[in-house]
Amino acid sequence: MGGDHGPAETVAGAVTALRAHHVPVILVGDEPQVSGELRRHGATAEIPVVHADDAVPMAERGAAAATRATSSLAIGCRLVSSGEGGAFVSAGSTGAVVACAVRAIGRSGGVLRPALAVALPSLRGGASVLVDAGATADPSPAMMAQFALLGAGYARAVLGRAEPVVGLLSIGSEPGKGNRLSCQAEELLAALPLRFHGNIEGHDVLSGAVDVIVTDGFTGNVVLKNVEGCVQTALAMVAEAGIASPLRLAEVARRYDPQTHGGAALLGLRGTVVVAHGSSPAATIARACEMAYALAGHPATGMAATAATAVTAATAAELVT
Amino acid sequence: MGGDHGPAETVAGAVTALRAHHVPVILVGDEPQVSGELRRHGATAEIPVVHADDAVPMAERGAAAATRATSSLAIGCRLVSSGEGGAFVSAGSTGAVVACAVRAIGRSGGVLRPALAVALPSLRGGASVLVDAGATADPSPAMMAQFALLGAGYARAVLGRAEPVVGLLSIGSEPGKGNRLSCQAEELLAALPLRFHGNIEGHDVLSGAVDVIVTDGFTGNVVLKNVEGCVQTALAMVAEAGIASPLRLAEVARRYDPQTHGGAALLGLRGTVVVAHGSSPAATIARACEMAYALAGHPATGMAATAATAVTAATAAELVT
Repeated sequence: MGGDHGPAETVAGAVTALRAHHVPVILVGDEPQVSGELRRHGATAEIPVVHADDAVPMAERGAAAATRATSSLAIGCRLVSSGEGGAFVSAGSTGAVVACAVRAIGRSGGVLRPALAVALPSLRGGASVLVDAGATADPSPAMMAQFALLGAGYARAVLGRAEPVVGLLSIGSEPGKGNRLSCQAEELLAALPLRFHGNIEGHDVLSGAVDVIVTDGFTGNVVLKNVEGCVQTALAMVAEAGIASPLRLAEVARRYDPQTHGGAALLGLRGTVVVAHGSSPAATIARACEMAYALAGHPATGMAATAATAVTAATAAELVT
Repeated sequence: MGGDHGPAETVAGAVTALRAHHVPVILVGDEPQVSGELRRHGATAEIPVVHADDAVPMAERGAAAATRATSSLAIGCRLVSSGEGGAFVSAGSTGAVVACAVRAIGRSGGVLRPALAVALPSLRGGASVLVDAGATADPSPAMMAQFALLGAGYARAVLGRAEPVVGLLSIGSEPGKGNRLSCQAEELLAALPLRFHGNIEGHDVLSGAVDVIVTDGFTGNVVLKNVEGCVQTALAMVAEAGIASPLRLAEVARRYDPQTHGGAALLGLRGTVVVAHGSSPAATIARACEMAYALAGHPATGMAATAATAVTAATAAELVT
């Protein structure tokens, strides 16, 4: 039901996930609407629907959203906690997904707050994980230290970096430069058992200077959306100048669009949750389902990324807060 | 003395400002070094030098920098407060420039903290003012409301917007979405006598959606540097794809490089101060000098931008804090 184009695009995305990528899907939402969309794809026999009376509107805040016990978000998350679902994907409001997931699935032992991890493409060809990209707008320094551990766990398990290098986003590369929160987080990060590079700045976000970019959820979300906006604007500038073919520019844009990667993983929970962009078209929803399937560690994918959550949760618990 | 390439690039920039743009300049710094650079340009007779024993290193924090009474920053700022200089330009550390300027020049009546304003190019062809771009890393909500007034004054006086539209940078366009600081600032901004558009998000920074983008100095500085990094990365991606000529891409890059505009204006002081990027080459230093000259309201430029400071300071003082 979530997202700017739900349920039409979300259902179409689920159908693509199943048919093109062999990801088994359960849809959760208003049964008549969802089944109507499934009929348009001739897919009613392939995808089961779990009915939800209620849907959380995009504008609703997290705390209020979490009280709606029969919303599609609440029911979807409960499918994960009961084991009927291996992972949950939503294009709904990030705040609402986080609040419902914490309530229904619960945090991993020792984790103070969940964090959203997004893999950003870097110019060097790899990817850097931005964490937190918007789950926790007002973290404490200790929460940010946990974000570093969760992000490093993700980089190890999903991006295959054996010893990920972690940077803290700030406003000066020198130690001690930043705001109160980042300076306190810097001291904690320096004491953690990980490869801490120190402070990085806004221009380092896409440079691939570090594997994990740690920041608070407010700055992280602003930066994530700023990256999208700036890359689009820069390519539009090139198009406007008439110096490259629009078709080939669109290819470059696709390669570097964070949406290409499907979604953001919510780290620090007892189950797998992927948040897709609210504006996701069907193809992006399908990739978010693929990503969730891989993160949930289905043997067929050759990945056991649930290990990421387990490892980082254990490490996070060790952190003195 | 400031910047990554001072004094070589700063002196070369000052010579260009004088010779190409007819901006009268006084140089402040280590006399032997500065005069040595001037000699390389055959400009010792054209530009006076005021000696400074001391120079603030780039890594030094603001509070410590402000105690150095004989630094080039302190002496340069005192030239403005005494009236010998019409404006002060530095490529030194932003924090140090802000601290020295507040100490030597002073805040305008009622202004709680100064804010750095940077004109960002927008796709629609105009420019938006980002404020605060890094002067005050931990503002209160009331300070942010003043940043809105200072930014609106700048947009009126410098960009010629009669009734500038002001947006607050946050992580959701709906009212009440954000972190604690932005939510409290949002309530204050909504009550101000200006055209408040409400919250904007990271992807709106270059879209031209609003004339003034208000944020705290931490987020603003991260975003400013992120814009630079992302535009550069996007153009590098196009270059790498081999679908446009590097020469013509460089032209596009120049048009949208915030450095092209010379520097950031420090608003809310009793005098004009412009902060240039630490990595500024001579041409950018020259533009920063031109910008400072225009802001200081020299009659020959046809601008009376000191009005901006006066008007906004008066309005800021009216704000109940």
